Amino acid sequence: MTTARGSEGLGIVETEYHTFAQHNGFTTEGGKTLSPVTLAYETYGELNADKSNAVLVLHALTGDAHAAGRHVRDKGPGWWDNMIGPGRAFDTNKYFMICSNVLGGCRGSTGPSSINPATGKPYALDFPLVTVGDMVNAQRHLVDYLGIERLLSVVGGSMGGMQALQWVVSSPEMVRSVIPIATTATHSPQQIAFNEVGRQAIMADPNWNEGNYYGREPPAKGLSVARMIGHITYMSDLSMSEKFGRRFRNGHSGFSFDPNFEVEGYLQYRGENFIKRFDPNSYLYITKAIDYFDLANGKGLQEVLRGVKARFLVIAFKSDWLYPAYQSQEIARACKRAGVKAIYAELNSTWGHDAFLIEVEEQAHLIKHFLKSVFGGI
Amino acid sequence: MTTARGSEGLGIVETEYHTFAQHNGFTTEGGKTLSPVTLAYETYGELNADKSNAVLVLHALTGDAHAAGRHVRDKGPGWWDNMIGPGRAFDTNKYFMICSNVLGGCRGSTGPSSINPATGKPYALDFPLVTVGDMVNAQRHLVDYLGIERLLSVVGGSMGGMQALQWVVSSPEMVRSVIPIATTATHSPQQIAFNEVGRQAIMADPNWNEGNYYGREPPAKGLSVARMIGHITYMSDLSMSEKFGRRFRNGHSGFSFDPNFEVEGYLQYRGENFIKRFDPNSYLYITKAIDYFDLANGKGLQEVLRGVKARFLVIAFKSDWLYPAYQSQEIARACKRAGVKAIYAELNSTWGHDAFLIEVEEQAHLIKHFLKSVFGGI
Repeated sequence: MTTARGSEGLGIVETEYHTFAQHNGFTTEGGKTLSPVTLAYETYGELNADKSNAVLVLHALTGDAHAAGRHVRDKGPGWWDNMIGPGRAFDTNKYFMICSNVLGGCRGSTGPSSINPATGKPYALDFPLVTVGDMVNAQRHLVDYLGIERLLSVVGGSMGGMQALQWVVSSPEMVRSVIPIATTATHSPQQIAFNEVGRQAIMADPNWNEGNYYGREPPAKGLSVARMIGHITYMSDLSMSEKFGRRFRNGHSGFSFDPNFEVEGYLQYRGENFIKRFDPNSYLYITKAIDYFDLANGKGLQEVLRGVKARFLVIAFKSDWLYPAYQSQEIARACKRAGVKAIYAELNSTWGHDAFLIEVEEQAHLIKHFLKSVFGGI
Repeated sequence: MTTARGSEGLGIVETEYHTFAQHNGFTTEGGKTLSPVTLAYETYGELNADKSNAVLVLHALTGDAHAAGRHVRDKGPGWWDNMIGPGRAFDTNKYFMICSNVLGGCRGSTGPSSINPATGKPYALDFPLVTVGDMVNAQRHLVDYLGIERLLSVVGGSMGGMQALQWVVSSPEMVRSVIPIATTATHSPQQIAFNEVGRQAIMADPNWNEGNYYGREPPAKGLSVARMIGHITYMSDLSMSEKFGRRFRNGHSGFSFDPNFEVEGYLQYRGENFIKRFDPNSYLYITKAIDYFDLANGKGLQEVLRGVKARFLVIAFKSDWLYPAYQSQEIARACKRAGVKAIYAELNSTWGHDAFLIEVEEQAHLIKHFLKSVFGGI
C-alpha cells in the first residue's frame, strides 16, 4: 500500500500478506496439495473505480514482493524502483501496481522454508515441486482477492517474463497486455545447465543435509557458489571488463589463491551475502521451476498463442547472453504467426541480462507509450 | 616415441619423463625454487638431421602429454589424435611432434600432488604458484634436452595457445612460427570469474581440507561442480541445443531434483568422472596460472611483439564464447601493428570452444599449408 508519493519515488511502502486455500487446498501441476498458501505482496498507486488500471509485476529468480518504494527499516529501495513510481515507466499516478513473491519463494510467500502444518516443522524437501504455472495460479488467487477481473498488463523480466507469458496462456481472458522482458518461452539446455550447476553446488554442501538445515548451519558455501555462477551470467563480457578490468584489490599482493582480482572479490562478496536473504532450498525449487518451463509444452508456440487477445511488447537486450535476443524474437514471431499483436524491441545495452534492471530510459519510453495505448484502447 | 605408423594413426605410443633442476633448482616467476622438476612428455615422428622439423604442441587446462596415438592399456586415443599422425594436420611423416604435461599438472609432471623431497609428502599448497611463463620455461628445459635449437612451430588451443604466445615472447630466437588457437593474449574478467567459481567450488568442499587430502577422500564433489561449469563454457548454446535439446533421460519420470534432463545427466557424468584423472589442487594452480596470464603485462601487445620473427597463424571459432574471436583478432591486429607476419582465420564452427578439438578438416587444411610454407621457408 502506498503511503507517500513524492516526486522522489513512492516513499515508504509495506508488504502485505494474502492467505488462501485454507480449506480446499491448492493443487500443484504435479498433483500435490498445499494448505494454506500465503503470498507476500505489495501494491503501489490506487485501483481506479472500474478496476481497469491494474498491472501485475512479476519478479525474477531472486526477487521478491518489494518492487518499489522503501521499507521503514531497509536502506535500499525495491528491486524495480527506478521503473515504478510517480511519473516513472509504471506511473503510480495512473496505474495500480501489484507485485507478489512467488510460490516456492522465501520472502514471505509459502515455500520450502515455511512451516508445514502437518508436522509443525519447515517443509524442506517435503514441499512439492512447483512450476511457473503453479506460481501463476497462486497469483490468480491474489488478483481475484483484490477484486480485479482483468489486468491492464502483466510484466516481468527473466523468470518474471516467463510468468507473464504463462499468465496470458493460463488466463487469457484476464490479460489485456503482456510485457515479457529478457526472457524465453522455454528454457534452453544451456540455461538448464547453469541452473543445474548451481543446484549441484548447493546439494554438494554437507550442510545442505538433504534439505534439512533449518535451525542449523545452512549450506552457505554451496549457495554462494550458485550465486557466483548466476552473477557471471547476469553480466556481459563487456560490462565485466568495464566494471573490473584486470585490476587487483589493494594492489597486486603477490600470487595467491585469495580473491585478488576485483572481479573475484565482487563475486565472493555477492555470493557470501546471499545467504542473508535467500533460502537455499528455494533456490533449488525456483531454478527447477524455470528449467521445466516450456510455454508451448511440445506444441508450436503459435498454436498456444492463437486466439489470444492480449497485446505484446517483447523487449530484449543485445548483450544479454543468458536469455539471448533470439529467444525474444521467437516469441514475437510466434505472436505474428498466431495473429496476436506484438511489438518487438531490441535494445542496445551493454549490461547483459542485468539490463532489464538497469536500462531505465529506453525501457521506460517503450513501456509508457505501450501501456498508454492499451489503457486508452488505442 | 612412435612405435607404429599405419594409415590409421600413430598406433601405440609411450609417455617418457625428463627430470631436471636436480641441483640448481628451477626458480618460478614468483621467486620460489622447485627441485627437481619432472616433465612427462611424448614425441611422435622423427627429428630430422638438421633438427628443423620439431613442433611443440601445448595442451589446454585439463589436457596432458598424451596428445596422439594410443597407450597399451588405454581405450581412447590422445586428445588431439585427429590432428596428429601420418598424413594428418601435423603429419608425423614430416614433422617431429613433442607434447609435455604442464608444470603444476597431475599427469606425470611435477605439480601439487608430487612428492616434496623436503618432506617426503605431497606438496599440496606448499607447491609454489606457477605462471604460464613458468610452464614455458620448464618446457624449454625439455626442448634443450632434446637438442632442438629452433622449433618449427609452437601450437596449442585455449591454455595451449597462451603457452604458444608466451614461447614466442620468452624465447623469440627459438620459435619459427606460432599457431595460437581459440585463445587470448590476456584473461578477461569473465574468464577469471568462471575459473574463480570453479576454485571456490573445490575449496568449499570440506574434503579439500586446505589442500591436504592426499591419501584420503578427495574433494570430488567440488571438483565435479568446477568441471560442470567448465563444460558449459566449452560448448555453445547451439551445440547444447543440438546435442541435448530439452530431452529427458529415460522419459519424463515426474518432477524431481535428480538430473532428469539429458544435459544434466551429461554434466553430472562428466563432473563425477573427472576426479579419476585430475587432481583438484592442480585445477586450482593451473586455473590461477591462466588467470594471471597477460602477455603484454601492462604494455601494448604490439610492443611485446615488435621484433618477433616468428610467423603467426591465429585461429578462432565464431561460436566460441569462452575465448571469443575478438580476442584472437586482437592478437592478429597487434602482429600487424608490430610488423609481424600473421594470418587470421575465423572458422564457422557451431561447437563453441570445443571446436579446436573437433573441427579437424578446416583446421587441418589451414595448418598443413601454413607449416609447409614455414618449413619450406616460403
